[in-house]
Amino acid sequence: MTQSLLDRRRVLGPAYRLFYAEPLHLVRGKGVELFDADGRRYLDAYNNVPVLGHAHPAVVEALARQASLLNTHTRYLHDAVLDYAERLVATFPDPLIRAMFTCSGSEANDLALRIAMTATGGNGVIVTANAYHGVTALLAAMSPSLGLPTAPTVRTVPPPDSYRGQGDVGAAFGRSVAAAVADMRRAGIGVAALLVDTTFASDGLFFDPVDHLDEAVAAVRAAGGLFIADEVQGGFGRSGRMWSFLRHSLVPDLVTLGKPMGNGHPIGGVVTRGDLLDIFGARSRYFNTFGGNTVSAAVGLAVLETIQSEDLPGHAARLGEQLSERLSSLRGHPSVGDIRGTGLYRGIELVTDRETREPATDLAKAVTDDMARNGVLIGVCGGASNVLKIRPPLAFQAAHVEELVEALDKSLSRCAGAQSRER
Amino acid sequence: MTQSLLDRRRVLGPAYRLFYAEPLHLVRGKGVELFDADGRRYLDAYNNVPVLGHAHPAVVEALARQASLLNTHTRYLHDAVLDYAERLVATFPDPLIRAMFTCSGSEANDLALRIAMTATGGNGVIVTANAYHGVTALLAAMSPSLGLPTAPTVRTVPPPDSYRGQGDVGAAFGRSVAAAVADMRRAGIGVAALLVDTTFASDGLFFDPVDHLDEAVAAVRAAGGLFIADEVQGGFGRSGRMWSFLRHSLVPDLVTLGKPMGNGHPIGGVVTRGDLLDIFGARSRYFNTFGGNTVSAAVGLAVLETIQSEDLPGHAARLGEQLSERLSSLRGHPSVGDIRGTGLYRGIELVTDRETREPATDLAKAVTDDMARNGVLIGVCGGASNVLKIRPPLAFQAAHVEELVEALDKSLSRCAGAQSRER
Repeated sequence: MTQSLLDRRRVLGPAYRLFYAEPLHLVRGKGVELFDADGRRYLDAYNNVPVLGHAHPAVVEALARQASLLNTHTRYLHDAVLDYAERLVATFPDPLIRAMFTCSGSEANDLALRIAMTATGGNGVIVTANAYHGVTALLAAMSPSLGLPTAPTVRTVPPPDSYRGQGDVGAAFGRSVAAAVADMRRAGIGVAALLVDTTFASDGLFFDPVDHLDEAVAAVRAAGGLFIADEVQGGFGRSGRMWSFLRHSLVPDLVTLGKPMGNGHPIGGVVTRGDLLDIFGARSRYFNTFGGNTVSAAVGLAVLETIQSEDLPGHAARLGEQLSERLSSLRGHPSVGDIRGTGLYRGIELVTDRETREPATDLAKAVTDDMARNGVLIGVCGGASNVLKIRPPLAFQAAHVEELVEALDKSLSRCAGAQSRER
Repeated sequence: MTQSLLDRRRVLGPAYRLFYAEPLHLVRGKGVELFDADGRRYLDAYNNVPVLGHAHPAVVEALARQASLLNTHTRYLHDAVLDYAERLVATFPDPLIRAMFTCSGSEANDLALRIAMTATGGNGVIVTANAYHGVTALLAAMSPSLGLPTAPTVRTVPPPDSYRGQGDVGAAFGRSVAAAVADMRRAGIGVAALLVDTTFASDGLFFDPVDHLDEAVAAVRAAGGLFIADEVQGGFGRSGRMWSFLRHSLVPDLVTLGKPMGNGHPIGGVVTRGDLLDIFGARSRYFNTFGGNTVSAAVGLAVLETIQSEDLPGHAARLGEQLSERLSSLRGHPSVGDIRGTGLYRGIELVTDRETREPATDLAKAVTDDMARNGVLIGVCGGASNVLKIRPPLAFQAAHVEELVEALDKSLSRCAGAQSRER
């Protein structure tokens, strides 16, 4: 069955990739559990899209109810998109008072950059060294993690690396960004934006110290550029706050949203300042056929209401503390170089040697595959693909923390042992 | 109520636009009928997204069923996306044998261009003078209808205008495209693609004569470029064939899909040659979080199965003949310069004078608003916004044709009379 599906994947072409050495054939999900075609259960400690948990009844109900009434677009008046936009912007600090809707985080980042480029008159963008911001042509050329060349108007900077960085991480990040700004100016490129995932997931997950973005954002703003916080991965409560950037004192000029926004339903969005949209709207109309449609709006509203009524950011903060404490028990494994994170977003950086901090890329892959084989799903991230990425649905509970940490403990032992036997 | 909604739209910013002088507050739809908050009924002769009709039960059922089971992505194996991809590519002629999935027509066009640019090594794109291909940064810069400047790598050509064009329309279009190719070469720009909506909707709807694209596509291919057929508006049966390009003998290199693909659910896609994806896949992985997810695939499959089992292309062809015949009765109105189209996709070009063929832009707007006021929804298109655009859900039936044509007849009389009194 799995082999037949693998063969049939040819119809999608070779750009598609699968997770894990033995790809999973999943057929059902509920809460934080997934089940494959053989009825085998997996604990999902990886998927952030189903933020409320797989097949959440509030989402399915909102989806079915609105789809059976009317699914239409923003060129007619409808309450749902306005109810949703108002409730969404209310979760942001001033001056972030406007929302525009898209179908994906890619479309959101692309739109945010169009707005930033229109408002600043520049087209230069600064991103981090292993950033991933989406699949459009514009974004692929500023997503070095795809392995494609970046555009001539793009500059990359090392992330604020709290593990390998020396001295004041925020100051170093600020200097890198200031140097990128200076380099753009020399090349005659106007600075449009600093675009960063505020959890630096693709770069390996960096969260601290608080306010580590201050100097960088100051340098970009001094050059007339804007700060776009990509909350496509980190948003909607995972960090212990509704938005990851709220851990810091800084307020972005534009915030982009995606993945968890519809618990799997294709929704994305941009939340931004009124003056920026006044400039953008004066230059161009915007119509996204599906963006903000009545069904997507109803689903987005159901997700947001559930996050708020169940205080999932608070839950992520509290359970995240417990997860952090339990993960500390893994520090006995010689391969564990660093454990970091916030809320229910955690990274475990694996190294071959704690002194040299050489990335243990093979081990990270082996551990991830071994965990999956044993029924617990995690991922990897980082420029060297050596950081275990823990990013469960927020329906995660204390018992799941125990199950996850025990599985990690066993896999780390098993895989490190296998690797040393191979040597 | 309407005023309150209008005021609240401020939260979306000024780039959003509404249809009609008196915007509609729609709350419910069924088949080809829409109902506003006051219970007023409208005949929908405009919306192509709900291709099967509003709130179609097969779509709602597929949506709710799969969403209650599992909504996840293409990095796990799943039957739904493969069943859908196989059934979809089976509707295309060789060598179009591969499908990739996105969340919107914009993402589909953007991806098709990335594939074309990778495969050809060029980045020059030829589009028509009033084209609209989407909202991403790449596409906005090749969508002159947005009123924004086009990119330096983009060339625009007049559409194959069967009403205003002189002599052999296809030959003239071919000469324009060949000139654009030559101009690109002089500027050192490699030709990536000719990208056209095969119904030329934004340019004013041009369908004939059959094979009017042959010379243009030959010129682009001779320069090493590819032909991308944008079927986002015209696809899925409306033309009387499953794909609009099937009216011609030409086979595109890439076809992009969107709007009607999920009957309102956010789905888009690219169908293309295997060799092009081999080149693309060797250079870059592609992962679209929501594109081809299990729910979207189930919905897409339900839409496609319904189109096929109910032979909606055949229905569109047959009812389109009847529509065409009834629309001919409007030729008595002096403002009707041309009536054209295929299947359930029709344009009525309004002019102030049949000799000079001066576009009757104000009249087209007045007629559209008057029709809406009287309960029948149509739109306008064309570079001068003077072409009435008739593009109903394919659930349209003979009685709806009668209702539409009678309403058009009355509105044309009423609005022409009002305009002559104003003069």
